[in-house]
Amino acid sequence: MKIALLGLGNVGRGVWKILETNKEEVSERSGYDIEVAKILVRDVAKNRGFEVPEELLTSDPEEVFNDDSIRIIVEVMGGVDPAYDYMMRAIRSKKHVVTANKFAIATVGDELIAEARKNGVMLYYEASVAGGIPIINGLNESLTANKIEEIIGIINGTTNYILTKMTYENCSFESALKEAQDMGYAEADPTADVDAYDALYKIRILTSLGFGVNYDVDNIYREGIRNIQSVDIEYAKKFGYVIKLLGIAKENNGGLEIRVHPAMIPERHPLANVNDSFNAIFIKGNAIGDLMMYGRGAGDLPTGSSVVADIISILRKDIDNYTAPRAINVKKPLLLKSMDETETDYYIRLKIKDIPGVLGQVSTILGQHDVSISSMIQKGQGHEWVSLVFVTHKTLEGKLNTAMEEIKSLSFVEEVSNIIRVEKL
Amino acid sequence: MKIALLGLGNVGRGVWKILETNKEEVSERSGYDIEVAKILVRDVAKNRGFEVPEELLTSDPEEVFNDDSIRIIVEVMGGVDPAYDYMMRAIRSKKHVVTANKFAIATVGDELIAEARKNGVMLYYEASVAGGIPIINGLNESLTANKIEEIIGIINGTTNYILTKMTYENCSFESALKEAQDMGYAEADPTADVDAYDALYKIRILTSLGFGVNYDVDNIYREGIRNIQSVDIEYAKKFGYVIKLLGIAKENNGGLEIRVHPAMIPERHPLANVNDSFNAIFIKGNAIGDLMMYGRGAGDLPTGSSVVADIISILRKDIDNYTAPRAINVKKPLLLKSMDETETDYYIRLKIKDIPGVLGQVSTILGQHDVSISSMIQKGQGHEWVSLVFVTHKTLEGKLNTAMEEIKSLSFVEEVSNIIRVEKL
Repeated sequence: MKIALLGLGNVGRGVWKILETNKEEVSERSGYDIEVAKILVRDVAKNRGFEVPEELLTSDPEEVFNDDSIRIIVEVMGGVDPAYDYMMRAIRSKKHVVTANKFAIATVGDELIAEARKNGVMLYYEASVAGGIPIINGLNESLTANKIEEIIGIINGTTNYILTKMTYENCSFESALKEAQDMGYAEADPTADVDAYDALYKIRILTSLGFGVNYDVDNIYREGIRNIQSVDIEYAKKFGYVIKLLGIAKENNGGLEIRVHPAMIPERHPLANVNDSFNAIFIKGNAIGDLMMYGRGAGDLPTGSSVVADIISILRKDIDNYTAPRAINVKKPLLLKSMDETETDYYIRLKIKDIPGVLGQVSTILGQHDVSISSMIQKGQGHEWVSLVFVTHKTLEGKLNTAMEEIKSLSFVEEVSNIIRVEKL
Repeated sequence: MKIALLGLGNVGRGVWKILETNKEEVSERSGYDIEVAKILVRDVAKNRGFEVPEELLTSDPEEVFNDDSIRIIVEVMGGVDPAYDYMMRAIRSKKHVVTANKFAIATVGDELIAEARKNGVMLYYEASVAGGIPIINGLNESLTANKIEEIIGIINGTTNYILTKMTYENCSFESALKEAQDMGYAEADPTADVDAYDALYKIRILTSLGFGVNYDVDNIYREGIRNIQSVDIEYAKKFGYVIKLLGIAKENNGGLEIRVHPAMIPERHPLANVNDSFNAIFIKGNAIGDLMMYGRGAGDLPTGSSVVADIISILRKDIDNYTAPRAINVKKPLLLKSMDETETDYYIRLKIKDIPGVLGQVSTILGQHDVSISSMIQKGQGHEWVSLVFVTHKTLEGKLNTAMEEIKSLSFVEEVSNIIRVEKL
């Protein structure tokens, strides 16, 4: 059984290694001896730090696509251009496709999936979300008896590593980021991770599987972790919370909330103990109740594990005569809620002048907008500026924002230092 | 699509409810409107506390097996007799089978699976282990690229509930058991749970999938939680551990350890935070690294969720013309290690006379058998009898047992109060 890899970076290397190391298992379980017949790379001469037979490498896509004996294309190059065209070309030449490409699946996946369906080939993408964690198969195969009510994921390892460092080693965001870069968890330009684009793509993919809706990523709320300060983490601890970057998709009164942002969650919730670069996805279904899957969200071997599992899944089906099963998507898609309609608790940290009556004025304004306070800490008494920190009860975000606009304009309020959503879970 | 239920207890009720409540989702995802055409029960007249059309109930198996229009048999009666015969009969009349029956799968599952393969029908049993948690599908479909190295499960909700109560509410075993019975988590006769038979069946099933070995349950070491005392839980906390009932299957030097027993695990390990009646399975694979699945291990709806997912999985395949894919089992089964060859750390609690030189004698004997102590606590000074509690470094169980025999015979040793394995994980 001949397959080809498109790309030989981190994930490609993992796939190659697994096919070598676990040759026997893969062969027994798939029923085929798998041969990597071609590997498409940009630069054939590049030193990759591990052994791969030179004759397999090519920079000419024609060598891959014109070879009819290659039945499965494994796309591990990332990005949309040229990955999208390559996958389309593979599908149209009736080659099955496995991809680890979250960006492509999140943004142009619907076209790819439709085209695969039309051409009677399989398009698998387990590795595109949360590396080794089999969450796609979980939603596609194991949770089919459920109405999914909530998907909440820690789906970016880099930011989870940074937040873990900030929480347990009292690092600043900057020094934790630096350490993540030194460890190879974060890129030199960390935007994709810390500004939550990566998590956005992943929650978009999970939402499509769990709720059958395909919203454009540009319409999904996204907020990264750059504004999280050590002091917020300290306050979170005082209130019994930890801060995590979450991707959230949940039903709310017949609509759907989808959002990616840092949030405080209760310290004894299973997600609160997902540390370092680990990922986890927590799901509520109306039959299964709570389910969590925890594991390595990145890395060559964990991600390669999902890619190779997809290859094996394809080979365990009838690859010559494949008919796609019914889509698992339900018919009536839920409408995307605006952020104003989002309902959570909120943590708010203000910098204010320490004069009498301040708390009264703040809470009066909040009350006028149906926002009530559940707990409060005031710090720095005796100084000119003090911190007023409070957590609200469940509140509509639109109302909170209106209230905060008014509060911001009060003469004794120097700044609204931070607002972080609190997910009671 | 007509199906029949065998049994209408807790799980049967869950399946019925899900097929009613999530009719639309099930229909969309399976491509069929599913009709429960018959429900085989012992007593048709019994009041079941929920509505089910009387005409569906029958106590005559012939009505089920002689109806060719029934394509899937859902066995949710439990036990081997007559469930085994019924499933065999279903398989031989080319009906697909879904079962939640851990006891049958663990003890006579190999015959059932072989017969299903021979007859070209599907036999699915996701619900037989850990209720709603899709661990069977995980092993069968998602972890196929891995050599599995370790499976460690909290796979009995009742004992986990009891141990959680003992740990966080300082209950005795007896009062925690009583509470579990009041909550409906434990049976009037709690043997199956507290003596770890239930966990034994489940680890047997997981071992067969993860390692391709089918050991007789009678050859697998099993130890329940009756001997765990509050004082052991207190000492565990002091050493930084919590006590959980674990099912363990792990490779050890080319052999396989399979065992079910209470164990101390580090308090910050993800399994340590699996509380109440929740289950979790922690897996190490040579590609995926660490993976954990967490969820409801019992209950009508969570278990029903797995049963209905299996029904949907069957319907998404070609039910008229099914060929089983290759077994995922690897060819060379690992030999079962004897408990003497097991290697872990050990927690040991002795009741001894408080006389000088005691610790020296004990540690000398341990040392003679290559057992070394990593930490020690002595309590009760000034009383006639004191507790000597210590944790060893990694030790062969055979050597430890020999050493403990000698220690037991020392004149100042009143009793070996408890020995609990410590899994460093």
